[in-house]
Amino acid sequence: MTQIDQSVSSLSNRILYDDLRLFHELILDKAGLDAFSKEAVTLGLCEASLRGVDSHGVRLLPHYVRSALSGRKNPTPLFNFKLTFPSVGHLDADNAFGHSAGMKAIDHAMELAETQGIGVVAVSNSSHAGAMASMALRAARKGFIAFAFTQGDSLLLSYNGKRSFFGTNPICFAVPRQDADPYCLDMATSIIPWNRLLIHKQNDELLPEGVAADENGNMTRNPHEAKSLLPTGTYKGYGLSSMVEVLCGIYTGMFFGRSIPAMYHHPMEQPRHIGQFYMVMRTDGVVSASHFLEQMQAMTDEVHNEPHHDHTPIMLPGDKEIKAAATRMIEGIPLDNAIVRDLESLGAEFDIPLKLIRP
Amino acid sequence: MTQIDQSVSSLSNRILYDDLRLFHELILDKAGLDAFSKEAVTLGLCEASLRGVDSHGVRLLPHYVRSALSGRKNPTPLFNFKLTFPSVGHLDADNAFGHSAGMKAIDHAMELAETQGIGVVAVSNSSHAGAMASMALRAARKGFIAFAFTQGDSLLLSYNGKRSFFGTNPICFAVPRQDADPYCLDMATSIIPWNRLLIHKQNDELLPEGVAADENGNMTRNPHEAKSLLPTGTYKGYGLSSMVEVLCGIYTGMFFGRSIPAMYHHPMEQPRHIGQFYMVMRTDGVVSASHFLEQMQAMTDEVHNEPHHDHTPIMLPGDKEIKAAATRMIEGIPLDNAIVRDLESLGAEFDIPLKLIRP
Repeated sequence: MTQIDQSVSSLSNRILYDDLRLFHELILDKAGLDAFSKEAVTLGLCEASLRGVDSHGVRLLPHYVRSALSGRKNPTPLFNFKLTFPSVGHLDADNAFGHSAGMKAIDHAMELAETQGIGVVAVSNSSHAGAMASMALRAARKGFIAFAFTQGDSLLLSYNGKRSFFGTNPICFAVPRQDADPYCLDMATSIIPWNRLLIHKQNDELLPEGVAADENGNMTRNPHEAKSLLPTGTYKGYGLSSMVEVLCGIYTGMFFGRSIPAMYHHPMEQPRHIGQFYMVMRTDGVVSASHFLEQMQAMTDEVHNEPHHDHTPIMLPGDKEIKAAATRMIEGIPLDNAIVRDLESLGAEFDIPLKLIRP
Repeated sequence: MTQIDQSVSSLSNRILYDDLRLFHELILDKAGLDAFSKEAVTLGLCEASLRGVDSHGVRLLPHYVRSALSGRKNPTPLFNFKLTFPSVGHLDADNAFGHSAGMKAIDHAMELAETQGIGVVAVSNSSHAGAMASMALRAARKGFIAFAFTQGDSLLLSYNGKRSFFGTNPICFAVPRQDADPYCLDMATSIIPWNRLLIHKQNDELLPEGVAADENGNMTRNPHEAKSLLPTGTYKGYGLSSMVEVLCGIYTGMFFGRSIPAMYHHPMEQPRHIGQFYMVMRTDGVVSASHFLEQMQAMTDEVHNEPHHDHTPIMLPGDKEIKAAATRMIEGIPLDNAIVRDLESLGAEFDIPLKLIRP
């Protein structure tokens, strides 16, 4: 349930989804990504932007291209998947792009779930995977229930602490239903994600009250002074973040806490060794798959009809993103000036034109 | 990470843990519970009180005894466990006590995890299970990672809504470590649990700001007017609650949302058909079990040494409860006057004396 960024919605630069995808594919091809990685990263970034999750969308492309060219991320990984128990596998991602590792992992997890009822795939040596919904929705659209977790840089202010220990470690959970697109919860355990803070920094805009802290652990609204983010629900968000760290850092044998190489400060030629964790389940562990889908739909319909305070009906996780995607698929995806500038300069470098909808 | 209730800590009524357990066993025996149920409920309630989670501890005993005598809960359930996939089982709990169903379920889940790497047990026809930590810790103490979820009465104010739809559906996650007692996150998805609100009601005390809403969905501090609880982290807690409902209500084929029979308002002779969901994993899906335990311990030690604001060191989920248990094991468990009155009257009814530590 990453919040839709309002900051870009009124801007006049827009691009059609298919044109945005084509641009990504061509750029990532020139950056040396193999077919699977190129497809995974393109889908991950472009779909996040389509769904209104601009913090985890195409604004990351320039950084991702630099990651490939500098050697931090492996554009042509040799994945090594090993089944360690009948329902558990370990994917060594060979420092792949996070989306690429994630899509590969969730494909293995679906295969396990198909016969076992549930499949776990723990990923080592991965990297930033963007919005975890990209992976979870891939499974939900094929009729599976999916959990997706990733660890991230140490950026979450510890409860009662002066600095961060855990990351903004997100929790993602996607579930198919009869008529509507899948239900999808995708939330950072911080109040706002770090990539949203970066948008504020880029645009020199004050942060909302109570979402970030400075180097001494004191609240700040200045995005340039912010060193950590406040957990959602105070000690509960902090607790959930530690849960994700256990799954992604300890279980996978990767780093944890302040030892994780930071996304934007770590040398660009060194891999980050990020851990991810996926669990996929069949829907028919107790009831039939069709009954499950019907009940998910019935719950969705009931929730939408609950009494509400203003003109906005009660929503379920993912409703906002489904609505944004429907609008943006028709009207195009709005891009702010900084992103257009970045993408155009990337296009110039690789001789790929960015085809905007001109007003 | 259910918060420790401060309201009882200064009271002079105290009871030794072993005496409290004996009292529970004798009472529950007279109430007709079979050996497994009696042991499960005794452990669940008494350990919650020992760990400082008074909202989910022995204050529930009188209600539980009424549930057995009235026919709502089955004191001698015939559990029906069926493996539906190699790593997934369904436990029909025959309207057992929630603790009894939960302990049985997590035992099956451990058995599955042992050979499969992960085991899921979905429970139908269960009831209130108290603190989910009771079940998760049972697995963590045997060296497993455990998730435990339960649905509950519709009591959580929907985000932007005028009334509740989902319950205060808790998330529990327990993990073993080398030296210390297991890590254990156990949190309601509301800011405070309903059973804490009931303590305020009983003692006629105002609620904190912004934790509860009245029948129109407006904030109230009056516990007698409160009809719903605010989700932790606003829409994120609401989203997490819906996730738990999918696992416990939809997956298990039970009720969901406003259709769930309420704990305190539903006729006492009718079962509530509550769903629960357990996932248990081995720790050695990627690294060895000993390396996992060492790293959990290293993470714990690092967190405890992080810089903090006041005299309280940085904690991990469960630290507060571990500390409370250590103190209460020596000094006895404090009970407020209302609980002592309730337990003594129950004792009088069944001719079982309540042996307090007299000051």
